[in-house]
Amino acid sequence: MSAATDRPMRLGLFLQGAGHHVAGWRHPEAQFGGENLKLIQGIARTAEEGHFDLLFLADGLTSSADAHPSFVARIEPIALLSALAMGTKHLGLAATMSTTYTEPFHIARAFASLDHLSGGRAAWNAVTTSYARSSANFSRGDHPSHDDRYAIAEECIDVVRGLWDSFADDAFVKDKARGVYVEPDRVHTLNHEGRYFSVKGPLNASRPPQGHPIIIQAGSSLPGQRLAARTSEIVFTAQQTLVEGKAFRDGLRGFAVEAGRNPDHVMVLPGVCPVIGGTEAEAKALYAQLQGGIDPAAAILLLNDRLGHDVSGYDLDGPLPNLPESDQLQSRARLLTDLARRENLTLRELYYLVAGARGHRIVWGTPEQVADALEEWFVGGGSDGFNIMPPFFPTQFERFVGDVVPILRKRGLVRGEYVGNTLRENLGLPRPANQFFPD
Amino acid sequence: MSAATDRPMRLGLFLQGAGHHVAGWRHPEAQFGGENLKLIQGIARTAEEGHFDLLFLADGLTSSADAHPSFVARIEPIALLSALAMGTKHLGLAATMSTTYTEPFHIARAFASLDHLSGGRAAWNAVTTSYARSSANFSRGDHPSHDDRYAIAEECIDVVRGLWDSFADDAFVKDKARGVYVEPDRVHTLNHEGRYFSVKGPLNASRPPQGHPIIIQAGSSLPGQRLAARTSEIVFTAQQTLVEGKAFRDGLRGFAVEAGRNPDHVMVLPGVCPVIGGTEAEAKALYAQLQGGIDPAAAILLLNDRLGHDVSGYDLDGPLPNLPESDQLQSRARLLTDLARRENLTLRELYYLVAGARGHRIVWGTPEQVADALEEWFVGGGSDGFNIMPPFFPTQFERFVGDVVPILRKRGLVRGEYVGNTLRENLGLPRPANQFFPD
Repeated sequence: MSAATDRPMRLGLFLQGAGHHVAGWRHPEAQFGGENLKLIQGIARTAEEGHFDLLFLADGLTSSADAHPSFVARIEPIALLSALAMGTKHLGLAATMSTTYTEPFHIARAFASLDHLSGGRAAWNAVTTSYARSSANFSRGDHPSHDDRYAIAEECIDVVRGLWDSFADDAFVKDKARGVYVEPDRVHTLNHEGRYFSVKGPLNASRPPQGHPIIIQAGSSLPGQRLAARTSEIVFTAQQTLVEGKAFRDGLRGFAVEAGRNPDHVMVLPGVCPVIGGTEAEAKALYAQLQGGIDPAAAILLLNDRLGHDVSGYDLDGPLPNLPESDQLQSRARLLTDLARRENLTLRELYYLVAGARGHRIVWGTPEQVADALEEWFVGGGSDGFNIMPPFFPTQFERFVGDVVPILRKRGLVRGEYVGNTLRENLGLPRPANQFFPD
Repeated sequence: MSAATDRPMRLGLFLQGAGHHVAGWRHPEAQFGGENLKLIQGIARTAEEGHFDLLFLADGLTSSADAHPSFVARIEPIALLSALAMGTKHLGLAATMSTTYTEPFHIARAFASLDHLSGGRAAWNAVTTSYARSSANFSRGDHPSHDDRYAIAEECIDVVRGLWDSFADDAFVKDKARGVYVEPDRVHTLNHEGRYFSVKGPLNASRPPQGHPIIIQAGSSLPGQRLAARTSEIVFTAQQTLVEGKAFRDGLRGFAVEAGRNPDHVMVLPGVCPVIGGTEAEAKALYAQLQGGIDPAAAILLLNDRLGHDVSGYDLDGPLPNLPESDQLQSRARLLTDLARRENLTLRELYYLVAGARGHRIVWGTPEQVADALEEWFVGGGSDGFNIMPPFFPTQFERFVGDVVPILRKRGLVRGEYVGNTLRENLGLPRPANQFFPD
C-alpha cells in the first residue's frame, strides 16, 4: 500500500438490475440486469477482474414499480449468488435477507449453503426491512416498530450464529468401517428459547468454510450502529460529506471497542455512484442527461419513501417542511433533512438529488477526478472503502474497472490481487472459533 | 417409442447425499454428496447424458443423524439447483419446499428465480412436512395435524400460482423513450385473503419461462391424491407391487378427470432403488453387503419414523403389532403394514427391508433384469416412469446410465434426446395460460 495508508481500500459492487440512478436504465447504453443472467454473469466477471472484494445484492420483499424499476422484478439473491458462485473464483457474494420476515433457521441455512457452494465467499446483509408494505405479503399483523425490528434482529443474528456453530469442524468423520457418519458428541443442539424465537437446532449444515459467513449491516440509526458494532464485519451506509462520514466511522469504531472487538474488524463502506466521462464536460453532460430522465412523479414517491412522509402536497419550490420523525428509515431521513437544510435546497432540488442515487453520494468527473474523490474520503478516515453503485450497467461499471481502478492501484490504494481463498481471508479477518467447540 | 407403449418412460434421478440405501455410504465405492459440489455436479452431468427428465432433491428442515446420514447436512435445494443450472442445459431441476414452514411469497419467488436462472427447468415438490420435530426449529406452536397441513397446502399452492401470474408476459416493455419500464395495466395485484394466508402481491418476479414451474407432490393419502390430481404434474410415490401401483395410478388419473384435467398431464413416478451387478450373483451379493451394513438401532428408528409409532419394545422376531393410525405419514405407514401382512414378515425382516430404501421398492439384478422390472411395471400401467434412487453414488448411478438406460432405449421405452427447451416442453405439457391475463 502507499505511504498514505497501511490498509487497502475495500471495493464492493452494489449490483442493481437497472442501474442505481433512477433514470439510468433509459440511457442508450443501459442494459437491464434484473433477470438477465448473462448480463449479470458478465458484470460479476468484470468485478473479479477489478479485484473487487465483493458483489452486493440489495433485496426487497415487494414488487414496486413506483420508486425504481430495479424493484419491480429481481432474482432471489441466494439463488442468483449460487449461480454466480459457479462462474467466479474469488469474488465475495453478499446477499440481503430480512431478520423481520425470514426464520433464523432458513437464514442460517441459506448462507451456510452459499458459503459451501462458493468455497467460503458468502456474506449476509442483515436488514430489518424498513418498508411497512412488506408485511402485506406475509400473512402477518402490523409491521413491527423500528425498536422492535432491532430487538428482533439482535436475537435473530445470535440464533443464526449459534446455528452455524452446530457442528465441530471435525464432526463428520464418515467412518465406513465403524459405521459412524457423524460423531454425536461433536454436534451441538442450540435449544434457543428467546423473546422472539424458539429454535432447537442443530442446523442441517456442517460448519461453513468461513466459520461464520461475513455479516453486513446497513442500519445507520443508533440501535443499528450498536448492533453492527457488536455483530458485523461490514457496514454499508449513505454519507454525503467527509465530515459526516468520518464522524459516523469514528463513532462506529468506538462502539466496536466498547463491544470488545478490534475496530479494524468493522469496515465502513459508504455507497458512491460514480458518473464517469472521458472529460469533465462529458461527465457533466452525462449526469445532466441522467437527471433529465427523471420522472418527477417517481422522484417524489422515492423521496416520500426515504423520508417516511408524503411531501407531495407541499410547494415544490419552497424549503423542506418540518416533519415529525418517521419510524421507517430514521437515519436516512435525518441525512436528507440535514442535507436540505445545509445546502438550502428546495423540495424539487432535494428530490432530484435523492432520485439520482437514493440518498447516496454521486461523484461525477473523469476517472482521475473520481479516483481523487475516493482517495480523499478514504485517506481522510471517512471510510474503509466503498460500495460502488454505477448509474447504469454494464458500460459505466466497465469504465470504473477499466479506468478508475488502475489509477487507484497505481496510487497503492487498492490491492492488485486476491490474497486469500475465502472472503474472510481477503478481508484480513480471522475465522471465528466455534462457540460450542472452542478447541 | 415401441409398439408396447406410445408414451416415453419418464426418468427422474432422486439425488441424496449419501445414497438411498441407509448403509450405502459404507460401500467402498461410495462418495458423500451432501455438501460435495464437485461430486454432485458430476452426477448431474451423468443424468443429463442419460437424458433424464429431472433431478429431484428431497429436503428436510431438521438435522437428523439417527435415521439416515443424508439427513444430517445438506445444501439448501434452491441454492444447489441454481448452481447446478449453470453446468447443465436440459435437465429438469426439482426441489422440495414445505407448504407448512415456508411463506407462499418466498416459495413463489424461489421457484420463479430458479425457473429464470435455468431457462425454464424448475419444478417444485410441494410437501406438507410430515415430521412434527420440524416445528421445533421455527418458533411455532404445535405441528399442524395431517388434515390441517393439507388444507394449508391447498391454499398455499393456489396463492403461489396466483403470484406466478402477477405479470402478463408482455408487461415489461422497458420503453426507454417513454420512460415506461413496466405497463401498469399488465400487472395483477393478487390481494389474497384466505383462511391461512393474506398475501397482497404482486410477486417481484416476471412470469416464469414455464408460466408455472412444474408442481410435484408426494403425498399418497387420499387428501394428498386429490390435491395432486388438481394441482400437480408429477406424483412421486412409494409402491411395492404392480397391482398396488396400477390401482394408485388409475385412482389418481380418475381424480384428475374429476378435476377437469387431462389425466396424461399427471405423471406417476414411483421410487425405485436399483442394485446393479454384472451378474445376478454379483447383484445379489451387493444387496446382501448393503443389508449387512445396516445398523439395527438406526433401522428401527427409521421404521418408527415411517410407521409414526415406536415399535422398539416389541418382539423383533414376532409379527408387526396392531397399531393405531398415525397422523404423520399415513399412506406410507399403511403401505408398510400391508407389506408386512402380505409377506408375513417379522418385525426384524420388515425393518431391514424398510431400512434399505425407506419403503421404496428395491430391484436387484443385472442391467437386463433391472430393465425388465422397470418395463414390466411401466407397460403394465403401474407408472409413467420412475424416480431412480441409487443405493450409493456415484458408481451405482453411473451403471444405471451406462448399462440400463441403453437397454431401455433399445427397447424404445425412453427418449434418446431432449425434445424441448424447458422441462414442461420435454414432458410434453402445455404452458398454462395466465389466469389474470388470458390473452
